[in-house]
Amino acid sequence: MPETFRVGLLGHGTVGSAFEALLGERADAIEPIVGARPEISGVLTRSRGAFEEILESSDLIVELMGGVEPARDYVLRAMRAGRHVVSANKQLLSQHGEELWATAREHGVQLRFEGAVAGVVPVIRVLQESLAGAHIERVHGIVNGTTNYILTEMAASGISYETALAQAQALGYAEADPTDDVTGRDAAAKMAILARLAFSTPVHLDQVRYEGIEQITADDMAYAHDLGLGLKLIGTAERVGTGLNVRVHPAFLYAEHPLASIHGPFNAVTVESDAITEITISGPGAGGPQTASAVLGDVISAMIPPATTPETTQQLAIIEDVESAFYIHLEVADRPGVLAQIAEILGMQGASVKSVLQQGLGVNARLIMVLHPLLESRFYAALRLIGQLDFMRSPPRAIRVIDEEFT
Amino acid sequence: MPETFRVGLLGHGTVGSAFEALLGERADAIEPIVGARPEISGVLTRSRGAFEEILESSDLIVELMGGVEPARDYVLRAMRAGRHVVSANKQLLSQHGEELWATAREHGVQLRFEGAVAGVVPVIRVLQESLAGAHIERVHGIVNGTTNYILTEMAASGISYETALAQAQALGYAEADPTDDVTGRDAAAKMAILARLAFSTPVHLDQVRYEGIEQITADDMAYAHDLGLGLKLIGTAERVGTGLNVRVHPAFLYAEHPLASIHGPFNAVTVESDAITEITISGPGAGGPQTASAVLGDVISAMIPPATTPETTQQLAIIEDVESAFYIHLEVADRPGVLAQIAEILGMQGASVKSVLQQGLGVNARLIMVLHPLLESRFYAALRLIGQLDFMRSPPRAIRVIDEEFT
Repeated sequence: MPETFRVGLLGHGTVGSAFEALLGERADAIEPIVGARPEISGVLTRSRGAFEEILESSDLIVELMGGVEPARDYVLRAMRAGRHVVSANKQLLSQHGEELWATAREHGVQLRFEGAVAGVVPVIRVLQESLAGAHIERVHGIVNGTTNYILTEMAASGISYETALAQAQALGYAEADPTDDVTGRDAAAKMAILARLAFSTPVHLDQVRYEGIEQITADDMAYAHDLGLGLKLIGTAERVGTGLNVRVHPAFLYAEHPLASIHGPFNAVTVESDAITEITISGPGAGGPQTASAVLGDVISAMIPPATTPETTQQLAIIEDVESAFYIHLEVADRPGVLAQIAEILGMQGASVKSVLQQGLGVNARLIMVLHPLLESRFYAALRLIGQLDFMRSPPRAIRVIDEEFT
Repeated sequence: MPETFRVGLLGHGTVGSAFEALLGERADAIEPIVGARPEISGVLTRSRGAFEEILESSDLIVELMGGVEPARDYVLRAMRAGRHVVSANKQLLSQHGEELWATAREHGVQLRFEGAVAGVVPVIRVLQESLAGAHIERVHGIVNGTTNYILTEMAASGISYETALAQAQALGYAEADPTDDVTGRDAAAKMAILARLAFSTPVHLDQVRYEGIEQITADDMAYAHDLGLGLKLIGTAERVGTGLNVRVHPAFLYAEHPLASIHGPFNAVTVESDAITEITISGPGAGGPQTASAVLGDVISAMIPPATTPETTQQLAIIEDVESAFYIHLEVADRPGVLAQIAEILGMQGASVKSVLQQGLGVNARLIMVLHPLLESRFYAALRLIGQLDFMRSPPRAIRVIDEEFT
């Protein structure tokens, strides 16, 4: 193992530049894991770099150019020269996957492509490794963040498809030419790749039926809402008798469906098998840093398959006292001044009250309070003092509340 | 690579016997993936088998005995003899992990333990491989299925903790002695393992603060419901300043929290990092077949790290026509016989109506229908006929509905 591990980078768009930055940031942490320090040995863009030179000076090639050619040619040449390849190119893999995988096998190199499907959601690795021995019945999910953002906004604000698309473009969630996303073709390419892995059957993009979201109206969303339904663009690959069906189309889901709660630019994939019931993985579906993180995971795995757990590299101190929000349940005698005394004790410890519920009267009164976060040591100091008040009818009860912001 | 790969099995309880059955079922599918056929070379139980003989005749040892001794002794001896080890033993790993991992490194063998945390949910692999290069801020989630089942039942039926526990025991979700689960100690062991991997810092079970669910009353659940809160047993490992806090306690969550929708014996773990935002993985947290599936994934990975995508082994036919449920939106002239004519066409194609919504009057009438699943070819045949009816004011619109049962 050399002391540096040389990574040749093809493509320097959003994901490529995010990958270069992330590799630089994380090189110190990666070195002890793999026993070699990763460094970028060359970058190929439209205007600079020569493929042959980069190949010559690299141990591994990362392909983030997108599109079929010349990406296909470069990836094949790299593997024939004995280099591992990491790619995030769904067009390439969904149309020329069998040729690429056969070449990888023939030359004994790795071809990894977690970044090609569902951004940072590690569904490729889970299918190829965790579930390598499983008999899978179905893989389905939301694999396009752009359309999920558009549908989420249409549902939330009652706006039209056109308005939601323009908003997605303004925020960078949709490209200037959104055709591949909104027609379902992008999701179809990803489903072809997932189907190939889950069912060990060659699946070409042309074999995936797909419909997009361009025809969805604000009207449909409103009626469906009345019927308890929400709309998602769903990709499915499933056994049908002794065959396989792979498709992408908009579909209404009832609110209890696990995919119904995947909002905005997030992706989620569910894998179903009799033995495991189901596994669902969700996370941001796109974005430069997210896809770059998936690519980096592949690069590290290619550098050295993690045969075992590395030595501990950091020695963080174990901290006991943290901030928490609390629910408290107090059984009190209902008489003047009770709430004031409790509030004073809480205030002295820096606790601030988010909501109060008072129930019952006289000797059966109860106070239920939810507090904003504070250090647990201070909260328990307050609770001990409250427990000593003479109007308390039983020891106070406290349960933490997790109160976070969500997108 | 020999033509068989010999697996020695220590322990033959629920998980051990499920693993033996699953390995037998899936041996045909595993052989082409790894180039060797796995077979059980020996089984050690309390009443039969000798460890030394099993070790001698195995390429890899699967430890599913549970408890610290003699599991620790056997695992150490197996690794010192150059065998890879797969274990699902959280007690062992959370208390003696550093010794075991150091031994694995020293002898150049793999020690894999996906089954030790969250059943089939592949969080260990995601932390060790997909996120090997990530700077993780927090890992938190629901990692004990027994307590999540009890809390789900208390919330759904208003029953007491004691009644819900008895119900869990009757259904096999809780053991006769539920102490480790209900006190939070089982979850604490799992969080110690996750914290070690996520933060590369040694974490012993003794350093994890934990509280259980024995004190939770039906009362608390009812009041909290009024405040919009649901209760879960949450494990957390997070950076606090330059240190690390690892804890397990019951906590209320607002309904929009991603972990609030994890019900029954399911587990879910969220990993947060600036670069990736967050990944959430959920699935069944326990059960013999589920944990056995996680163990099998580890065995396959240990047999041969999947350097590349194996050849396709099945040739499933690609099926075009599948069954779907549909929503249809029809703009009609509201006059007698309209619904009857539409219903007749649907009936001829075998479509049955689940719900109908009629809006507007006279020339502005609309019919919104949801149909039960039928073959798409038959549905579209009906839709074409409906589109030709003279009272239709615009082409009919159809969107699929995913209508599945959930637990």
